[in-house]
Amino acid sequence: MLSAEIKTENLKTIVNVISTLIDEVKFTISREGMVLKAVDPAHVAMIEMDIGSGAFDKYSYDSEEDFFDIGMDLEKIKAIIKLASLGDAIKLSMDPKTGKAVFSIGTITRSMNLVDASGIMTPKVPNLNLSSNVTVMAEYLQKGVRAAESISDHIAIDLNGNEFRLSCSGDTDDARLELSGDEILSIEVAGPIRSLFPLDYFSNLIKAVPASTEVTLELETNNPVRLRFTLADGNVSVAYFLAPRIE
Amino acid sequence: MLSAEIKTENLKTIVNVISTLIDEVKFTISREGMVLKAVDPAHVAMIEMDIGSGAFDKYSYDSEEDFFDIGMDLEKIKAIIKLASLGDAIKLSMDPKTGKAVFSIGTITRSMNLVDASGIMTPKVPNLNLSSNVTVMAEYLQKGVRAAESISDHIAIDLNGNEFRLSCSGDTDDARLELSGDEILSIEVAGPIRSLFPLDYFSNLIKAVPASTEVTLELETNNPVRLRFTLADGNVSVAYFLAPRIE
Amino acid sequence: MLSAEIKTENLKTIVNVISTLIDEVKFTISREGMVLKAVDPAHVAMIEMDIGSGAFDKYSYDSEEDFFDIGMDLEKIKAIIKLASLGDAIKLSMDPKTGKAVFSIGTITRSMNLVDASGIMTPKVPNLNLSSNVTVMAEYLQKGVRAAESISDHIAIDLNGNEFRLSCSGDTDDARLELSGDEILSIEVAGPIRSLFPLDYFSNLIKAVPASTEVTLELETNNPVRLRFTLADGNVSVAYFLAPRIE
Repeated sequence: MLSAEIKTENLKTIVNVISTLIDEVKFTISREGMVLKAVDPAHVAMIEMDIGSGAFDKYSYDSEEDFFDIGMDLEKIKAIIKLASLGDAIKLSMDPKTGKAVFSIGTITRSMNLVDASGIMTPKVPNLNLSSNVTVMAEYLQKGVRAAESISDHIAIDLNGNEFRLSCSGDTDDARLELSGDEILSIEVAGPIRSLFPLDYFSNLIKAVPASTEVTLELETNNPVRLRFTLADGNVSVAYFLAPRIE
Repeated sequence: MLSAEIKTENLKTIVNVISTLIDEVKFTISREGMVLKAVDPAHVAMIEMDIGSGAFDKYSYDSEEDFFDIGMDLEKIKAIIKLASLGDAIKLSMDPKTGKAVFSIGTITRSMNLVDASGIMTPKVPNLNLSSNVTVMAEYLQKGVRAAESISDHIAIDLNGNEFRLSCSGDTDDARLELSGDEILSIEVAGPIRSLFPLDYFSNLIKAVPASTEVTLELETNNPVRLRFTLADGNVSVAYFLAPRIE
Repeated sequence: MLSAEIKTENLKTIVNVISTLIDEVKFTISREGMVLKAVDPAHVAMIEMDIGSGAFDKYSYDSEEDFFDIGMDLEKIKAIIKLASLGDAIKLSMDPKTGKAVFSIGTITRSMNLVDASGIMTPKVPNLNLSSNVTVMAEYLQKGVRAAESISDHIAIDLNGNEFRLSCSGDTDDARLELSGDEILSIEVAGPIRSLFPLDYFSNLIKAVPASTEVTLELETNNPVRLRFTLADGNVSVAYFLAPRIE
């Protein structure tokens, strides 16, 4: 059984990031925290999230097993988050024996049946060898994806020398974001890189991340992109994989 | 004829509370103020509201009769309230002889035909003998009804010793609000009380009341609940009756 | 070719005013600024707008011709404005030779094909002899048109002595705005004036104008109204003509 307490803001960010991909998820819970690996129904994107116990204000694991799995419907957690004010602490307990999750916020208690975790597959995280990477603030990427909307279904990422570019071309319109110099936190480019990705997946993820997050994009031409970032003051590590569209 | 002036905020609160039940209403107007008794079309809930002349900034009654009735469409008053800014005063005059109501806000004047009051029935307010009661801030009740939404159509109210509980049970989910100690302003319980009410009626009323309102719930197992509260600095007294659903 | 820079707020106001009438517009661009003449598809209203180069923070005209025409889809400019924060500067360049318009905001660039300007007619602005006029703040007019909504399709404008009145009559409801004294900035009335106009056109224009704009209405009974006002600190002059509905 797990008993824990988390800031509303942290729970909200975690749930928002995961739910860009999928609603019913399996968490593997241990003394060290919670781990999630999930793939979207179309198998276009995958997320690996490591929620360390430090992401919680209190975290108490009590089981004879080294870990246990629980299944959750994220839409229900979103409904609970809406009951909280910013700054509220959310208490939660999850017990695979009773099959119940209980959330409480002040004088309010919400309990629900857990989803059967045995029916939720754990995807195998791919081992990718990506030669190049760039780290930028999520805020810039958010501007880029907003500018690309309604122009095309695809977004291109280019790395060239010390420049990073997001671009999108339609029949009559084009949009691009170009970053260089101080706008880039770090960059390592093995050679000119260009890959094309589905805009909706990329855009939904980028919008779910807090604007001040440092996001690292690891790339190789015509290969998946791996986005790495942390949430909740570094206590949550995320790797997000997105398959390319070949031009 | 009545000529009066009222703060936008007070008119808004009064109209919001009544319109959880019904749109076309009859007010009985006298030198002392306005009185309303109304039942919803399904006869599940009833409201009795006494709007003292002190709820108005100015109140001038001019008629040879001791009182007169006027019929109003609350949706039209809501539209007028939307034209006002918070802090604006709304002037109003109602004249059963001309059959007109006139509202003015600054340089704007809206006039409308009154609704025929003779076609609106005055319900008989039931004489209930309810053994137990509890007084709490509306703010708590609002949290409770929000947590109950989408779980079930019913909400249970329990009084037991010094504890007050709102609860709601669905097939897989439960929600409850539990108050005790300082969270309760006053409580008198004749014995364990439990009644079930339709969530939508209860929820709509509770949300229409300002959060800082002290609400008294008078209860008896499987009997109607009577909610009592005041609005507009105590100048408006409300009694709201809601029929139980028998378990 | 034109290269210019404009405050987001100024571009937004200009586009909002024009797009109450029409989406695809032709601007005639010269060293002095941009000029637009447009009529709505139903030929009920017409706008003449003179955007002086002073409305821009930078304005650089580079062409061997004295002027050139470009066609724009205002919906696309609205989408670009949404990408900017208040206080952002928007850079723009328009080149009839390449047929491209390019907008940039910080690190974001959006380019698009111009619309073929030769297909957009330039209406002939009528020469009206209107005897009377009144100047008031847009804020008052905005209150008047909001009060008139859902009462009737028409709004009447009356000038009489030193009084200005907007009014609207329905089957059971009436609304009016009456201004006099300090509420009127200036007034010249040749005799009692009354004209009726379509509420939707009048209302949409009035709502698109910043509340603090001084609007002059030039009137003659049963003639079109000409509204005159300036935007962007006086650097944009607008004349808007609206046909009357004969009672």
